[in-house]
Amino acid sequence: MKLLVINPNTSDSMTRVIDQAARRYALPQTELVTLHLSRGPASIEGYLDAVVAAEATLELLLAHRADYDAFIIACFSAHGLHAAREQLEAPVFGIGEAAMLLACTLGHHFSVLTQPARSKPAVEEVIRGYGLWQRCASVRTVEMSVLALGDDAAATLANFTEAGRRAIEEDGAEVLVLGCAGLAGIDKALERALGVPVLDGVACAVKLAEACVGYGLRTSKAGGFAPPEPGTRAR
Amino acid sequence: MKLLVINPNTSDSMTRVIDQAARRYALPQTELVTLHLSRGPASIEGYLDAVVAAEATLELLLAHRADYDAFIIACFSAHGLHAAREQLEAPVFGIGEAAMLLACTLGHHFSVLTQPARSKPAVEEVIRGYGLWQRCASVRTVEMSVLALGDDAAATLANFTEAGRRAIEEDGAEVLVLGCAGLAGIDKALERALGVPVLDGVACAVKLAEACVGYGLRTSKAGGFAPPEPGTRAR
Amino acid sequence: MKLLVINPNTSDSMTRVIDQAARRYALPQTELVTLHLSRGPASIEGYLDAVVAAEATLELLLAHRADYDAFIIACFSAHGLHAAREQLEAPVFGIGEAAMLLACTLGHHFSVLTQPARSKPAVEEVIRGYGLWQRCASVRTVEMSVLALGDDAAATLANFTEAGRRAIEEDGAEVLVLGCAGLAGIDKALERALGVPVLDGVACAVKLAEACVGYGLRTSKAGGFAPPEPGTRAR
Amino acid sequence: MKLLVINPNTSDSMTRVIDQAARRYALPQTELVTLHLSRGPASIEGYLDAVVAAEATLELLLAHRADYDAFIIACFSAHGLHAAREQLEAPVFGIGEAAMLLACTLGHHFSVLTQPARSKPAVEEVIRGYGLWQRCASVRTVEMSVLALGDDAAATLANFTEAGRRAIEEDGAEVLVLGCAGLAGIDKALERALGVPVLDGVACAVKLAEACVGYGLRTSKAGGFAPPEPGTRAR
Amino acid sequence: MKLLVINPNTSDSMTRVIDQAARRYALPQTELVTLHLSRGPASIEGYLDAVVAAEATLELLLAHRADYDAFIIACFSAHGLHAAREQLEAPVFGIGEAAMLLACTLGHHFSVLTQPARSKPAVEEVIRGYGLWQRCASVRTVEMSVLALGDDAAATLANFTEAGRRAIEEDGAEVLVLGCAGLAGIDKALERALGVPVLDGVACAVKLAEACVGYGLRTSKAGGFAPPEPGTRAR
Amino acid sequence: MKLLVINPNTSDSMTRVIDQAARRYALPQTELVTLHLSRGPASIEGYLDAVVAAEATLELLLAHRADYDAFIIACFSAHGLHAAREQLEAPVFGIGEAAMLLACTLGHHFSVLTQPARSKPAVEEVIRGYGLWQRCASVRTVEMSVLALGDDAAATLANFTEAGRRAIEEDGAEVLVLGCAGLAGIDKALERALGVPVLDGVACAVKLAEACVGYGLRTSKAGGFAPPEPGTRAR
Repeated sequence: MKLLVINPNTSDSMTRVIDQAARRYALPQTELVTLHLSRGPASIEGYLDAVVAAEATLELLLAHRADYDAFIIACFSAHGLHAAREQLEAPVFGIGEAAMLLACTLGHHFSVLTQPARSKPAVEEVIRGYGLWQRCASVRTVEMSVLALGDDAAATLANFTEAGRRAIEEDGAEVLVLGCAGLAGIDKALERALGVPVLDGVACAVKLAEACVGYGLRTSKAGGFAPPEPGTRAR
Repeated sequence: MKLLVINPNTSDSMTRVIDQAARRYALPQTELVTLHLSRGPASIEGYLDAVVAAEATLELLLAHRADYDAFIIACFSAHGLHAAREQLEAPVFGIGEAAMLLACTLGHHFSVLTQPARSKPAVEEVIRGYGLWQRCASVRTVEMSVLALGDDAAATLANFTEAGRRAIEEDGAEVLVLGCAGLAGIDKALERALGVPVLDGVACAVKLAEACVGYGLRTSKAGGFAPPEPGTRAR
Repeated sequence: MKLLVINPNTSDSMTRVIDQAARRYALPQTELVTLHLSRGPASIEGYLDAVVAAEATLELLLAHRADYDAFIIACFSAHGLHAAREQLEAPVFGIGEAAMLLACTLGHHFSVLTQPARSKPAVEEVIRGYGLWQRCASVRTVEMSVLALGDDAAATLANFTEAGRRAIEEDGAEVLVLGCAGLAGIDKALERALGVPVLDGVACAVKLAEACVGYGLRTSKAGGFAPPEPGTRAR
Repeated sequence: MKLLVINPNTSDSMTRVIDQAARRYALPQTELVTLHLSRGPASIEGYLDAVVAAEATLELLLAHRADYDAFIIACFSAHGLHAAREQLEAPVFGIGEAAMLLACTLGHHFSVLTQPARSKPAVEEVIRGYGLWQRCASVRTVEMSVLALGDDAAATLANFTEAGRRAIEEDGAEVLVLGCAGLAGIDKALERALGVPVLDGVACAVKLAEACVGYGLRTSKAGGFAPPEPGTRAR
Repeated sequence: MKLLVINPNTSDSMTRVIDQAARRYALPQTELVTLHLSRGPASIEGYLDAVVAAEATLELLLAHRADYDAFIIACFSAHGLHAAREQLEAPVFGIGEAAMLLACTLGHHFSVLTQPARSKPAVEEVIRGYGLWQRCASVRTVEMSVLALGDDAAATLANFTEAGRRAIEEDGAEVLVLGCAGLAGIDKALERALGVPVLDGVACAVKLAEACVGYGLRTSKAGGFAPPEPGTRAR
Repeated sequence: MKLLVINPNTSDSMTRVIDQAARRYALPQTELVTLHLSRGPASIEGYLDAVVAAEATLELLLAHRADYDAFIIACFSAHGLHAAREQLEAPVFGIGEAAMLLACTLGHHFSVLTQPARSKPAVEEVIRGYGLWQRCASVRTVEMSVLALGDDAAATLANFTEAGRRAIEEDGAEVLVLGCAGLAGIDKALERALGVPVLDGVACAVKLAEACVGYGLRTSKAGGFAPPEPGTRAR
C-alpha cells in the first residue's frame, strides 16, 4: 500500500515531525511519502492561511492522484478534505477526523488540545462538522503560535500537560486528541504525564488509511462526493 | 455607503444577473460595485471549484479592502467567508446566510432550493454551520448545472416552481430561499407562482449590509476572527 | 416606509429610551412612531407580566394594522410575536430576534446580557425557540429589576460591563446582545468599554424592518401564520 | 385532594367533554372542578386566540389560587403555563405535557394527532419547548377546526384513525397523543381501532396531578418560577 | 392494584430502604411488594454489575409476570428496562426515568445527584437515552460507593447537600433528582436543606405506576417493544 | 497481535460466517480466534436476548482477558461493550460502532440496513448512543429474523439490495452499513449491486482493532471506564 501524507504548509521542520510520526506506527508493508506545499503559508495560523493552503493542497493531491492508494491531509482541520474526496476515489483522511474517530472507541468523551486561543471556534466548528460534538468534552487551547511549537519543546509539553490536566479534571475528558500536526511528537510523553490515551492525528490517520485500504474501501461516489460536471475554468 | 459584491466565479453573465439583483432593492444612498474573479471556475459546480474560488475571492477582497464599507460574497455557500471576516473589520456577508437569517423572521421553517442534486449534502452542511438547521424544512434540489441556469429561463422557472411546491406541501416550508446566486432573477416570479415569500440571497445580503453599516456594526475582533500573527508565507 | 414600534409596557421613560434608540439609526425615509400600552404592566418582570402585556400588545397592533408597513415589539422576548405574525401580513419583528440574527454575521458566538437573574431560563427558552442556541455562548444576568435600569445609569453600565467581560473571557462570546429594551441606550458605551460589537435590539429591529420592507418581504401565510377561521369570541 | 381543571375557552360543550374525561379516571379521593373562561375565545384556533386565552386563564387561576391543591390547563399547548407556575406554589400541569411525559414510558416514540393543519408548527414548537423532540415520531394533523370536532363524532374518529394509522406505519409511532382537549372523548375508541396506547392529555394531567400531590411535590421557586418583584401595574 | 418493586441487587438493607420509600407515598389501594435479586451484585457499582443485574432482574420479572399490574426497576439506570417492556404488557418503570419525567413539571431544569464520580458519563448516557438532555442542568457526583451510602447517614446528607447546593447555584438547577435507589430516604431532608423539590425515583415510580394503571395504560406492542419471534435458546 | 472475536450467541453457522469475514481482511500478522457463547440465545432477536447475551459475553471476555491484545463483540449493538471496556485495558470494539466510524470517512451520510422491522428503534438508539446521529441518513429494515438470514442467501441479498437502493435514492445515503453480524458475507455483493461502499462491521472491527493496537492505544481508565471498587457479589 502506498500512502501520501501532505503537510499543508511550507515548513520543512514541521514536515519532518509529521513524517516521523507517520512512520513510527506504520505497517511494514506501508510505503509512505510525506510532502509539503511548494507555495502557501509556512503554518496555518488562521482562516486565510487555511484558504490558501487548501488550494495548494488540492494541486499537490491531484498531481499525485494516480500514484497512491490513500491520502492524508496532515492538518487538524484538513482544509480541502471534501474537495479531495470529490476528486479522488482513493480514500482521503484528515488527521483531526482520524484521531477523533479512534478516540470514540477508547472513552466516553475526548478533549482536543490546540493552539492558539483564537482557533477555538474554528476547531469547534470542525468537530461539529464531523458530527462528533456529543463526544467532545471540550476544546482546550494554549496561547502559542503553530510555528512556535517546535522552538521550545519543554514549554510546549508543559503547556499542553496543563491544558490536558484541566480537560480531564474539569471537563471530564477521558481521551485527549492533539489538535495540530505540529504537536505530532508529544503524544506518548503527554500520555505518560497524564495517564489517559493521547492521540496524535497523524498516527491515527496512517492507521485508519491502512485499515480502509486493507478492507478495500473507497470514497463513495453516489452523492456529495460525486465528481461534478467538468466546468470551464479560466485560470 | 460603498458596497462591494463579489461574484466568486469568472462568468460575465452571472455577474450581470447578480449586479441587477443587487441594485434592484438597494437604497439610493448605496454605491454598489459588482466584480467577478479574474481567475477561477466559470461556476462553482463542486467542492474543488469552491476551494479555488475561495482563494481568488480573498485576493479580490484584500485588494479592495480599503475601498468599501461592506462586502458580499455572492455564492450561497460563500466559500472564504470566515477568512474574509478574519482579515477585514468591515462586515462581510454570504448570500445564503443573509437569506436564511431574513427568512427566520417570515415563517417557522424555510426550504432551500438549489442545484444540482449532488450539492445537497454540501448545502445542508452550510446550514448546519450557520446553526440554522432547526429552522430548515428541507433542501430541495433540481438536476441542472449552475451554468445551465441561464440557458433556458422557462425550464429553470418550471423546475424550481415544482421543487418549491413540494417543499411547501411535503416538507412544511413557509418561506423559500434560493440556493444559488445564478437564480437571483427568479425570486418574484417564483413568489407569484407559489404564494410564499421567496428570498434571493443577493438582495438579502445587500439589505443586511445596509442594515449593519447603518447601525455602525463591524466584525468582532475578540475571538475567532481576530487577525492571526503574520506568518511567513512562501508563495 | 412607516414603522410602528410598540413598547409592551406602560412606562413613559422606557418608551422614550426606546424611541430614541429607534430613531438614532433609522433611515431618513423611515417614518417611525413609538407607542406604549395603555394598560398592562409598567415593566415585564416575569411570566405573568408577559402574558398580560401580550394581549395588550396585540390590541394595539391590531388597532394600527392598516397604518404601518412594519411593526416592532420592543421587548427581548417579544411576547405575542407569533400572534402578530398570524394576524398581519406586514412583517413584525422582535428586538431579541433581530439582535441575535444580526449578531450571527459578526462573530461565531454571542452572549445575551439581561436582568434579573430569575429571567435566565426564560431568555434561554426564547433563544432555543428561535433555533439559535448553537450560536449562543451564554446568557449572563445582572441582579437588577427592569424598572431599576434607568435609575442609576452608572451602576447599570458597570454591572453590564462586568457581565459582558465575563461573557467574553469565560464563555467565548464575540458579540454581545442586550437582553432588554430598557438597556437600549448603553450599546455604544458598552462597545467602547469591551471592544466587541454590542447590539441593541431596538436599533437592530429598525434596521431589519427597513431591510425587509425595502426588499418587499411580508410574513408567509402558507403555514403556521395563516389566519385561522374566525371563531366565536365571547368577551 | 382538590383539583381545578381550567378549560381555556368559553365553550360549554368542550367543558363538558373535558370534565367527563377528567372524572373518568380520577381517584375517588380527588375532588375535581372544571371551569371555563368567562371571557375569551370559544375555541383556540390560532396564536391570537391563545394570547387572549392565556390572560383570562391566569385571571381564573389566580382567583382560585387558594382553593386547590393542583391545577390543570386543559389545552395541548397550555398557554400561560409558565406564568401559572411563577404565580403559584401548587403544581400546575398542561395536558399536552402530561400526555407526552406518560407516553415516554410506553414506547420509544409518540406521535401527536391534532388539528387543523395550520397548527402543526405551533405544536412542534411546544414539543421542542418541553425538550421532548427526540421522542416525537411526528405531528400528524387533520383539517378540522377545533369547534367542529364535536359536530360529527364519526368523521372525527375516522379522520383521526387515519392520521394515527399513518403515524404508526409511516413515522414509527408506538404511542399516540391526542393534541387537543376537544378530542378528550376518543382515546379508547382510537386505541381499539389502532392497537396502540392512545393518551388523552386531560386524563393524563389528572393522574399526574394526583401523583405529584400524593408525593407532596410543589413547583420550584428557586429559579425561573420564582415570584418576581411586584411591579406597578396600570390596568 | 398490585405493584412489584425490584431492587436489582442482593442487598437486604437497600431493599428495606427502597421498600419504605415505595410505601411512604403509595395509595392505600396499592398492594406493593419489594423483592431483591437472589443472585447478582450486592450493589451496582459499575457497568459489569449492571449487566449481571439486568439478567437476574429479568428472570425475577418474568417469574412474577402474571401476578402484578405494574413493575418498577429500582435503579436509576434501570438496566433491562427495555427488555422488560418487550416481554411484558403491563407497564414497567425505571426510577430515574420516573423522577426526571416528574421533575420536568416542576422547574425548567433538573440536576441529578449521584455517586461515585466514575458513574457520571453512564448517568449522562441514560439521560440522553430518555431524550431529556435539554432539561438537565447537570449531573453532580459525590465520591462514595453505593454500598457506603447507608453506613454514615450524616456524611451522606452533608455530601449531597453540598452537591445539590452547587447544582442550584452554579448550574441553574431548579429541581434535584436523586440518582441512586440507595439515596431513597433523604429526599425530604435534602428538600428542607436546599429549598427546592428533591425527587426520589422510587416514590416517583410508584406514583407514576399508579397513574398509568389508573388510566389503563399498557406498554405499546406496535414497534420496538413487540415481542420477538421465540428463538432457540441454549442455556 | 492476538484478537478475540466473540459471536454473542450460540449459533455455529453464524460463528462461521463471522470468522470468515474476520479473517478475509485481517493482516497476516493478526492471530484471530472466533468464539461463540456456550449459553445464551441462538440469535439476538430482541431486548431480552440481548440482556442474556451480554452477561454470557462478559463471562467469555473475562475468561480470556489475559490472552488477547484486543476484543470484538460481533453484534451490531454490541451489548456489554461498556462493561467490557470497564473491565479490560485492552481495547474492545463493537461491529456497528466500527462500521459507522469508518463510514464517516467515505461519505457524508450512511444508512444502516438491518432486520427485523421491530429492531429499528433499538438500532436508532445505538446510533444516538455513539453520538453519530447527524451522520446517519436512515435505518432501513427488512422483515426477516436474524436466524433466517442464512437460510435463503438469494432472498437475503435481494431484500437488502432493495433496502439499500431506497436508502440511497430516498434517504441520501452515500455509504451502507450492515446492521447485523449475520449479514457479514454479503458486503461485496451488495457493493457491486448498488455502487456504493457497503461496510460489514466484522471486517471493520478487525481493521480498527489492528489500527488501535498498532498505535498502542488502550481503553482510558480515567473516567467512566475506570474499574469500580470490587463489590460483594452473591451469585
